[in-house]
Amino acid sequence: MNETISLLKRHRSIRKYKDKPLSKEMVEQIISAGQAASSSSNVQAFSVIAVTDTERKRVLSELAGNQAYIRECPVFLVWCADLHRLKYTAEKHRPDQQSYEDVTENFIIATVDTALAAQNAAVAAESLGLGIVYIGGVRNKIAEVSELLGLPDLVYPVFGMCLGYPDQEPGLRPRLPVSAVLHWDGYDAGKTAEQVGIYDETMIRYLRERTGGQKDTAWSELMAEKMTQPLRLHMREFLQKKGFELK
Amino acid sequence: MNETISLLKRHRSIRKYKDKPLSKEMVEQIISAGQAASSSSNVQAFSVIAVTDTERKRVLSELAGNQAYIRECPVFLVWCADLHRLKYTAEKHRPDQQSYEDVTENFIIATVDTALAAQNAAVAAESLGLGIVYIGGVRNKIAEVSELLGLPDLVYPVFGMCLGYPDQEPGLRPRLPVSAVLHWDGYDAGKTAEQVGIYDETMIRYLRERTGGQKDTAWSELMAEKMTQPLRLHMREFLQKKGFELK
Repeated sequence: MNETISLLKRHRSIRKYKDKPLSKEMVEQIISAGQAASSSSNVQAFSVIAVTDTERKRVLSELAGNQAYIRECPVFLVWCADLHRLKYTAEKHRPDQQSYEDVTENFIIATVDTALAAQNAAVAAESLGLGIVYIGGVRNKIAEVSELLGLPDLVYPVFGMCLGYPDQEPGLRPRLPVSAVLHWDGYDAGKTAEQVGIYDETMIRYLRERTGGQKDTAWSELMAEKMTQPLRLHMREFLQKKGFELK
Repeated sequence: MNETISLLKRHRSIRKYKDKPLSKEMVEQIISAGQAASSSSNVQAFSVIAVTDTERKRVLSELAGNQAYIRECPVFLVWCADLHRLKYTAEKHRPDQQSYEDVTENFIIATVDTALAAQNAAVAAESLGLGIVYIGGVRNKIAEVSELLGLPDLVYPVFGMCLGYPDQEPGLRPRLPVSAVLHWDGYDAGKTAEQVGIYDETMIRYLRERTGGQKDTAWSELMAEKMTQPLRLHMREFLQKKGFELK
């Protein structure tokens, strides 16, 4: 295993940060590494809001589920899928033509572009000794988050990301067996039950060890609970209001 | 700049591969590094189909826009957003309850999970001296691709990825200025025109140098052309047929 793969495999989400600021240059270096990721036909359909203002971080923390680490990290990045910039190019050069920012395909392109850049930035940050955690909670009150950050139409916050110097060393959580997610030449749905069963046992052991026997819920039970909870049912309506019609 | 950031910033899409196979172990190592990426509440909502079969690669190449490199790379990965596995857990443990695989939020979660894992895998592959290129073209004939690979309901191919030993050294394409994509504390739509203008000049210079003056179209013109072309308008209907209602 080389150093980069070792870095990738050491990833843990960090939820406690030292009270130590990051330089603007360091943030720019991290975002620039993010930009080096692949982008569909070079559309680069994302923007990042780096939030350092204390009051703004406090409000975002409340909107995203009251997580203290959003307040406490020195920089909170809000990663946004951005078709606004592309709409601008269409209006500039082809003002009389229809453009297609509102179709599902372009929503996927922008969302994927954002995620690829964010993951590159996460790896860059960790290589500099920083820690990160993705925050899906920015989608809890997504309209309020968008208003606070002044996001125009055709821009939506896909996720947040805390950034800072780690003040904890959490353990590594096991993942599904490789063979659960990797199929050769075609999807083998027949192995789902067995692979999930193997992972359930792994996770039960892991949780028991970690909590001194207090917790031992199988992964599949946690997932079943999660999938039967209505989660952020406002997303479609919000996206439509912002111009992502998902046509 | 450390070694990892230098690796990230050296990324170029590779479209010509040596005729040299990859070991199964190497592919597993790369996917395993992909799994180490963050996942929303540990749902791990993705699967990868590693296609090595010559005939299958040939058909995929045709379906995805006749790109020779899909045939010629030793391994073609199809990265799929996968809520099938999670639906299984809900049916197993809570068969009488409604589950929410069909909402927009879970579509976003699965798509993002897939992209984060894929980008980690791309970085791992490049750290091993391999090259990659993302293939959005798997969404051209997405129903045929899904059928060929036997993808069940609630699984869709987000993108493909060629994997192999590079047989070319393409130049680095400049990206938008960092300040075009990075905003501090709030979105500054007022800078779009200026930043796009700066990038247009960079790209015109870059294209002229690369093509000996043959090409010099501004990025914003290329994007305007792209945004005014209808692209993969079948996506929504296809996704709905596969159970992603985007409700």
